[in-house]
Amino acid sequence: MKEFTFYNPTRIEFGSGKENTIGAHIASAGARKVLLCYGSERIKREGLFDTVSQNLADNGIEYIELGGIVSNPVISKVREGVELAKQHNVDAILSVGGGSVLDSAKAIAAGAHYNGNVWDLFAGKGELSSALPLFAILTLAATGSEMNPYAVVTNEETHEKLSIGNDYTRPVVSVLSPALMAGVSRDYLVYSAADIISHLIEVYFTATVQPAIQSRLVEALLNTVIETTQTLIANPEDEAARGEFAWAATLAQNGLILSGCAGFSYPNHAIEHSLSALFNVPHGAGLSVVMPAWMKWYKNRNTPQFDRFAKYVFGLSSADDGIAALEKWFEEIGTPTRLEQLNIREADLPAIVENVQINVKAFGIASDYPPEVVTEILMHAV
Amino acid sequence: MKEFTFYNPTRIEFGSGKENTIGAHIASAGARKVLLCYGSERIKREGLFDTVSQNLADNGIEYIELGGIVSNPVISKVREGVELAKQHNVDAILSVGGGSVLDSAKAIAAGAHYNGNVWDLFAGKGELSSALPLFAILTLAATGSEMNPYAVVTNEETHEKLSIGNDYTRPVVSVLSPALMAGVSRDYLVYSAADIISHLIEVYFTATVQPAIQSRLVEALLNTVIETTQTLIANPEDEAARGEFAWAATLAQNGLILSGCAGFSYPNHAIEHSLSALFNVPHGAGLSVVMPAWMKWYKNRNTPQFDRFAKYVFGLSSADDGIAALEKWFEEIGTPTRLEQLNIREADLPAIVENVQINVKAFGIASDYPPEVVTEILMHAV
Repeated sequence: MKEFTFYNPTRIEFGSGKENTIGAHIASAGARKVLLCYGSERIKREGLFDTVSQNLADNGIEYIELGGIVSNPVISKVREGVELAKQHNVDAILSVGGGSVLDSAKAIAAGAHYNGNVWDLFAGKGELSSALPLFAILTLAATGSEMNPYAVVTNEETHEKLSIGNDYTRPVVSVLSPALMAGVSRDYLVYSAADIISHLIEVYFTATVQPAIQSRLVEALLNTVIETTQTLIANPEDEAARGEFAWAATLAQNGLILSGCAGFSYPNHAIEHSLSALFNVPHGAGLSVVMPAWMKWYKNRNTPQFDRFAKYVFGLSSADDGIAALEKWFEEIGTPTRLEQLNIREADLPAIVENVQINVKAFGIASDYPPEVVTEILMHAV
Repeated sequence: MKEFTFYNPTRIEFGSGKENTIGAHIASAGARKVLLCYGSERIKREGLFDTVSQNLADNGIEYIELGGIVSNPVISKVREGVELAKQHNVDAILSVGGGSVLDSAKAIAAGAHYNGNVWDLFAGKGELSSALPLFAILTLAATGSEMNPYAVVTNEETHEKLSIGNDYTRPVVSVLSPALMAGVSRDYLVYSAADIISHLIEVYFTATVQPAIQSRLVEALLNTVIETTQTLIANPEDEAARGEFAWAATLAQNGLILSGCAGFSYPNHAIEHSLSALFNVPHGAGLSVVMPAWMKWYKNRNTPQFDRFAKYVFGLSSADDGIAALEKWFEEIGTPTRLEQLNIREADLPAIVENVQINVKAFGIASDYPPEVVTEILMHAV
């Protein structure tokens, strides 16, 4: 095992109805005025907004609204939030929504304490050394953002999709309420499944030091995601399965599965970020296209681990069979596996490949993923 | 899944040599004088004491020594530590040793902030509402105490073995250095394996709500403990296996495997505590005797989970085969499975059974474990 530090002080409040604890948590942190970030107006129609605003009022907390945060969140919206936070002198940020809202909220929390252009923090031109305290109520389980410090935001002007994150941008408290997640559409459920699986397999396959304990934990989570996705497709009201799915999403991206691993990278994310930056496809849908393609290209570089994946996730005996089983499973649950299903054509590849070079550079893997390699990978998805 | 709160802010510094970070961590918490708790003089002979005291000095931290803490730690020693801590006005506690030293250190940290008899906190006659900050360097992986708030201490006068623990007694930083654990004897390695396995199976078998995700995580850790114990018996110098064993011990008892579970209890611990309180047997050795006996008695109350255990831990197809495989494995690695191996005779049973009644009451399971049931369980180990 490689040496590591594990430190994750975010408090998870898991359970349907736990959204009613948020005001007390915010008040006990000493905050009196929050910027309440959310996405669509759906939370107003469905009553969650009223629940939360009432709970804040009950705890003596004022709020300023920032609605309209979109999937693949954009820096312009973050800038709007930073301005509001500064103008109204809020002393905490509350995110009510999925990973996109939460990532935006993290960026706003950091930007509110930064004198300058908030994109500097993403571009490595400014230091993230302080942020407003951040609280979250999660309505979609996928990104794991609720228990880690990372935020991924797209700059619409430069078409870059970059990330920030350190101890300052960890949520203080995250509420995971399975009942609130029950309204997720079937499409977003399966995209989320693909997203969680991608978080689990990047390190699992690419690490040069991958202790067996960590592989076993990953397989436990992979099997959970596969089983509960199927259960939820059959019965979206199954709250136990919804809960297990959500907890697997959190554990997939909270640092646990990285402990003791080394030499890993995130090539699937580096490639997918260009699909969503250029074509605005859902992140999970992009990932379910990229993963099988990347696996076919990569498998011979780590055959024992691909054999292990086939055996412990699908009960099969060869690397190729394991990859085929995952691809088939994606097709069965209805998440895309081909670029054309994302309305991306072979003629678009050069532009994608060029954009991916920005990401692989940011991810520190440019030498392993030159344009011709990225083309070769993506050709598996044509 | 049952609702839950997951909150674990302890920072784990994992890696050989990480003991050299402890002074910096203590200093950055603002402490200038610590009570340095340890067990035998072995840490002086082997150089760890010099390493730690030098590291403290380098960071401007004074220390007062409290050595001689024994396995199955006792309240008299805790009282000695509390007096020293108060007398010298220390502002933090540093534990250098295994679970017994760390549990004592937790009790001292709590006792130093309590006006009265520290045993009151264990006996439920006093409130644990403050404690000195606590730091740990672990030299034996077993109890999981390094990443949870719990301390188990024996009162030699009353023969009670009771526990305390809340957010105040969580270590701020725990160092897990596989190299420091390499000196553990073969006996203590296998007792530790039994201890970790007991932490994993109590909830796994007894919970009335046991989500599949949690069962899978437990199985991942059980398989790791079994595999790495065998590796370490064959080659005690295998640092990777030592590291995985230690990390499994931590994850077995840091709250992770409890998340979403409900209706569980700790009958094996309730019974074993009487063996170690009355006969001073090593906790793990007592547990490897109690577990197969308890499993034989309990199996029909949760057959599907025992079938699952047989299948996913030993690759076998029946509950009975799984229990037999665990018992055989304990015998193979050399940890006892019969009371006589602990020098306990059938004639001792009445006294044990009487003492267990104190524990099952403290554990809240007295109605399920009346004297005749405890006798029946222990008769499986005669």
